[in-house]
Amino acid sequence: MDKLFVIKIGGNVIDNTVALQQFLSLFASADAKKVLIHGGGKIATKIGDQLGIESKYINGRRITDEATIDLVTMVYGGLVNKKIVAQLQSLNCNAIGLTGADANIIPAVKRPVRDVDYGFVGDVKTGEINTAVLAALLQQNITPVIAPLTHDGNGHVLNTNADTIASSLAVALSELYDVRLIYCFEKNGILTDINDEDSVISLITKEKYNQLLEDKKLFDGILPKIDNAFAAIDNGVSEVLIGHADDLLQNLTATTKGTLIK
Amino acid sequence: MDKLFVIKIGGNVIDNTVALQQFLSLFASADAKKVLIHGGGKIATKIGDQLGIESKYINGRRITDEATIDLVTMVYGGLVNKKIVAQLQSLNCNAIGLTGADANIIPAVKRPVRDVDYGFVGDVKTGEINTAVLAALLQQNITPVIAPLTHDGNGHVLNTNADTIASSLAVALSELYDVRLIYCFEKNGILTDINDEDSVISLITKEKYNQLLEDKKLFDGILPKIDNAFAAIDNGVSEVLIGHADDLLQNLTATTKGTLIK
Repeated sequence: MDKLFVIKIGGNVIDNTVALQQFLSLFASADAKKVLIHGGGKIATKIGDQLGIESKYINGRRITDEATIDLVTMVYGGLVNKKIVAQLQSLNCNAIGLTGADANIIPAVKRPVRDVDYGFVGDVKTGEINTAVLAALLQQNITPVIAPLTHDGNGHVLNTNADTIASSLAVALSELYDVRLIYCFEKNGILTDINDEDSVISLITKEKYNQLLEDKKLFDGILPKIDNAFAAIDNGVSEVLIGHADDLLQNLTATTKGTLIK
Repeated sequence: MDKLFVIKIGGNVIDNTVALQQFLSLFASADAKKVLIHGGGKIATKIGDQLGIESKYINGRRITDEATIDLVTMVYGGLVNKKIVAQLQSLNCNAIGLTGADANIIPAVKRPVRDVDYGFVGDVKTGEINTAVLAALLQQNITPVIAPLTHDGNGHVLNTNADTIASSLAVALSELYDVRLIYCFEKNGILTDINDEDSVISLITKEKYNQLLEDKKLFDGILPKIDNAFAAIDNGVSEVLIGHADDLLQNLTATTKGTLIK
C-alpha cells in the first residue's frame, strides 16, 4: 500500500498569515501523497460581525442558522479554501479545493434535533465516503484541500467539524492507503503541563492513555482529540500524530516530533 | 467523439432563486456529459456593500482591488458555487465545484497595467488549459461546476470573465469532445428588437452576421457575445447557442430554441 498523509490544520494556523504561509511551504515541499483538511478560523466570526450575523452558541457549540451557513460556506468554502489552493499552486503543489458536497465525497446528515437544534450542522455518514474520487485525484498527483463543509443530500450545505472530517477521511482512505493522520496545531504536541511546551508526551498507547487519565495528567480540551485518534486507529488508520504546524516536515518522517498515537 | 455541453449561466439567473432552481432541475435532468460555468450575480455587490467594500468601475469594468478579490472569492467560489453543487447533488447530478485555480485547470495572468489597472483580474492563458483533469472527472460521470475565478501562479486568485472562461473551456475541450457551447440568459436569444422576445434570430452564420451588422439590427451589448461565439467556432467548437435559461432542455437537442451560431 502507498503511504498517504491526511493532514489537518486548525484555525490558529489559518488565522495567522505568516504561520499559514510557512505551513503551506512545508506542506508543498513534502514529496508524498497527501490530503489537507482545514478548519475555519476566526475570520468567519469577524466577517459575520461586519455583516451583522450574530454568533450563537449553546454549550460552547456554535448554532448554524441560515445566515451562518451562508457565511461559513463563503468563508470556509471560498475565501480560506481558494486562497490556500492559489498559494499551494504557486508552490508547485497541484491542489484542488473541495468541500464534502463536491463529487459527493462526504455524505452527511443534518444533525437530528434532540435537546438542542444545532441548525445546519452535518454529521458525517462515515460508512459512505466516496474514496474513489479522491484516489483518482491522488493518482494524478493532485492534492485535495478540503473545507469543513458537507451536504445533506437535500440541497443544503452543512457546517461540519474539521477534526471529524479528517478522521473520517483517514479511516475511509485506509482501505486504499497506509494512512498517517496528522493534526497540526499551535502547540508542540499533547502536553502534561499546558504551560510547558517541553512537556510533550511523545508516544501514547492505549495503556499509556489509561494511565494518564488515571493520573489526571491531561487537560480536558485534548481528550476528544485523543479519543478521535484511537477511534481512527481502531478503524484502519496506521498512526495518528498531534504536533505543531511548524514541525510538519519532521512529522512526515519516521523520526517524529509531537505526540504519536498508535 | 462524445458530445459535451459547456453551459454558462449569467448573473440574472443566479440572482433569482426560483429561476436558478428551475434551471438546475433542467440541467440535472440532461443525460449527457456537461460542464457548468456560472457568473457572479449581484449578490457580491450586495455583500460588498454590507462589508463597506466600494464597487469601483472604470469604463464600465469593475476594478478588483484586494478587498474585492477576497469578496468575489468568497461569494463566487464559496457561496454561489457550493450552493449550486449542493442543489445539483440533491437532483442526482454528481457535481464538483471548482475554480480555475483548482488542479490548475485554468492558468491565467494578472491583466497587465496599460491605461488602467484593473487589479486582480485574470486573462486566461487559453493555450494552457488542463483538460485532462476535467476529462477524468467527466469520465467518472462527475459534472464540473466552475466559478469565474482563476489564479496567477504567484498565489493570487484572479477575478475572470465567466463568458471568457466558458468559451476558453469549450475550445480546449473540443480537442476531446464534440462541444456545443450554450449561453443561458434571461432573453429568448439574440433579438432584432430588444423589446420583442419573439424577434429571435434563430440562426446566425458569418454571412448573416455581416448582413445584420450592416443593417444595424443588433444592439451593442450583444456584439461581444457573438464575436466570442465565432472565435470559439473558429477554434474547434461545433456550435454555439444563445438562449433563455428556461429553454435549456430543448437546447440540448437538435431542435433548438434561441439563436444558433455556426
